[in-house]
Amino acid sequence: MDRRQAKELERRYRSCLLESVVPFWERYSPDWERGGYLTCLERDGRVFDTDKFMWMQAREVWMFSRLCSRFGAREQWLRIASLGAEFLRRYGRDGEGNWYFSLDREGRPLVAAYNIFSDCFAVLALCEYASVTGQSWAMDLAVETYWNIQNRKAYPKGRFTKQVVENRPIRAMALPMIQIDMGRELAGHHPDPRIEETIERSIHAILTLHVDEERKTVFERVYADGGHPDCMEGRLLSPGHACEVLWFILQVAAEREDRRLIDRIADILLWTIRRGWDEEHGGIFYYMDAEGFPPEKLEWDMKLWWVHVESLYAFLLAYFWTGRKELLDWFLRIDAYCWDHFDDPEHGEWFGYLSRRGEVKLSLKGGKWKGFFHLPRALMLGADLLGRIAGEGLTSASGGDEEAAVGD
Amino acid sequence: MDRRQAKELERRYRSCLLESVVPFWERYSPDWERGGYLTCLERDGRVFDTDKFMWMQAREVWMFSRLCSRFGAREQWLRIASLGAEFLRRYGRDGEGNWYFSLDREGRPLVAAYNIFSDCFAVLALCEYASVTGQSWAMDLAVETYWNIQNRKAYPKGRFTKQVVENRPIRAMALPMIQIDMGRELAGHHPDPRIEETIERSIHAILTLHVDEERKTVFERVYADGGHPDCMEGRLLSPGHACEVLWFILQVAAEREDRRLIDRIADILLWTIRRGWDEEHGGIFYYMDAEGFPPEKLEWDMKLWWVHVESLYAFLLAYFWTGRKELLDWFLRIDAYCWDHFDDPEHGEWFGYLSRRGEVKLSLKGGKWKGFFHLPRALMLGADLLGRIAGEGLTSASGGDEEAAVGD
Repeated sequence: MDRRQAKELERRYRSCLLESVVPFWERYSPDWERGGYLTCLERDGRVFDTDKFMWMQAREVWMFSRLCSRFGAREQWLRIASLGAEFLRRYGRDGEGNWYFSLDREGRPLVAAYNIFSDCFAVLALCEYASVTGQSWAMDLAVETYWNIQNRKAYPKGRFTKQVVENRPIRAMALPMIQIDMGRELAGHHPDPRIEETIERSIHAILTLHVDEERKTVFERVYADGGHPDCMEGRLLSPGHACEVLWFILQVAAEREDRRLIDRIADILLWTIRRGWDEEHGGIFYYMDAEGFPPEKLEWDMKLWWVHVESLYAFLLAYFWTGRKELLDWFLRIDAYCWDHFDDPEHGEWFGYLSRRGEVKLSLKGGKWKGFFHLPRALMLGADLLGRIAGEGLTSASGGDEEAAVGD
Repeated sequence: MDRRQAKELERRYRSCLLESVVPFWERYSPDWERGGYLTCLERDGRVFDTDKFMWMQAREVWMFSRLCSRFGAREQWLRIASLGAEFLRRYGRDGEGNWYFSLDREGRPLVAAYNIFSDCFAVLALCEYASVTGQSWAMDLAVETYWNIQNRKAYPKGRFTKQVVENRPIRAMALPMIQIDMGRELAGHHPDPRIEETIERSIHAILTLHVDEERKTVFERVYADGGHPDCMEGRLLSPGHACEVLWFILQVAAEREDRRLIDRIADILLWTIRRGWDEEHGGIFYYMDAEGFPPEKLEWDMKLWWVHVESLYAFLLAYFWTGRKELLDWFLRIDAYCWDHFDDPEHGEWFGYLSRRGEVKLSLKGGKWKGFFHLPRALMLGADLLGRIAGEGLTSASGGDEEAAVGD
């Protein structure tokens, strides 16, 4: 990528973030009457459900706070972040300090605290919010929640656990994956060697258990010894999830200037995308079966926004750190698919759910699972990285190796 | 429909049942080594998962037993029914007598008894199995399970309940719906006025709470007073589910020769299919939102075999009892869609999961949720009804009203 192209892309990413995505959520999402956010938003911003899903509430607090960290604390962003943070503080937890899955508009619990990821996103939200506002209650609650998660993690669903674990002791990638992201966010403001240790163990678990170099496969669920149960749940792949965790790890590798790990991640990304890309209709499959059998999930062949934006950023970051042309090509290919299919120039923001052929299947901009998170995060991080390429060129970051020169 | 057409359709339905669907499951599904059934079957019968999902196990016991009741007790069908019934007896229940959701191939529990429908299908299975074999243990266990369900039904998920019911006291249609079918099956062999009462109450609940005549809508979930929470879960519609429960009720209405109820069900079926039919690509949507907002389910626009075969039989039955031409037209329209899209002439049986456009999305013939149940049941019941029309004509059943003459 030359500097001019990087500059153009940077402009496009930044304007999409600040002129399309952020204004959409600023305008339609804050629930100024009852606190928190309305996240079920039709294509044009109309609210179609007022339930408050804690993943979405917490992620939106994180993102508005992060915008303040990145671009300066604009009054409006701070107000919106506070609206969500105060709602979390007031209504978010049950008597045991676990975070509910969903509340009604007024903050009454609707779905109990069966889902530990609500807690994880609360840590992200409160930690970032504390860092931009200096509110110590938020940092205290983030830290308390972090340790509560560590205490619960061996049995994260508690009494809601349906799996008879002793008969099929499989572990899912999602928990070590979020330990990396959550741990890094928290340790950035609240250093603690035990957090670093957990990050380290999580990276190790993913690279040794979930990533199978021989089969060139990133498995969502594995046995504790890295073995694979030969059943639907054991063969499940999610290429977008794999790309997301790979860029979490790549960030750590880059900070440590661990070139071997950087190159390894780049290789894994490449075989992940080669398998996950839909050669017939373009885009990345949501789920696949490692052996090509029918996946368990009916929606397996749909094209989801988060799968694409996480992969987009993963390939840009890997290209940035290696300069390998193949990574750039994939980044540009995913970029083209995204802007051709997800972007909604009419009402702003992006569609979230396309059919395999790329048709819009659900017209919503926000819902139970789509909020103000993956897209703005990828656009913000992506624009900044593109800005560095535009400013400094690629060779400084990638170490000026030969391939980088070819790519550049 | 004239008698000749009915005869032709009868032949097609019966030959699909006995020459395509039944042989497929006879051949690939019995697990002669470990007991029970293998239900995760690829297009050509290859097994892709050996887990034993109790819905599928129980339904297959029911269906093979029912084939014996209908066509005479063939040795092979009895052997297969016994293989499943003994597996259910030996491994199916936990210490409290609740039925597991899934087991591994050897019968070890994998997913706990969180799902009361496992129990309901066990009642169907054991009752029908007992009736063809005279095995009293099976009838005893069916009756015991039936009463256990009645004891659990107010809190059917027990400790696994995530919903905070007091804050949104909604009731789902699925439980009263299966009470009708299960109650009728059991009461047929084990008469009990309390079972009849439960059937009656369930029909009443569905017709007064879930069916909304004013809005011409069958709601999946409603408040106990019939009100509708204005949120995704409150607005969810499932046209195939509605058609299935409507034919359960229609059977009762026909037995009672309740012409008013028969006509009312026919009307409800018509407005259900008019809304549920995909005018653009044909077929019936899986899920919809009552107000046209994006449904909660990503797979909402897929075309599922069970949705279509349940609707197919519902319209045939309603036509049989009323002679209304509009019902016949819909029956023929659904029939054409089914044979054009679901039938697999190459390997037998039907595909289960199509895209909105009718393309095969999952090539499986059986899986975690598709087994030996909806399709053979609809073919068997449909062929018998078509046989009656071919033999006696329509007017005798429909009471010879004017519309019937037009339809006939």
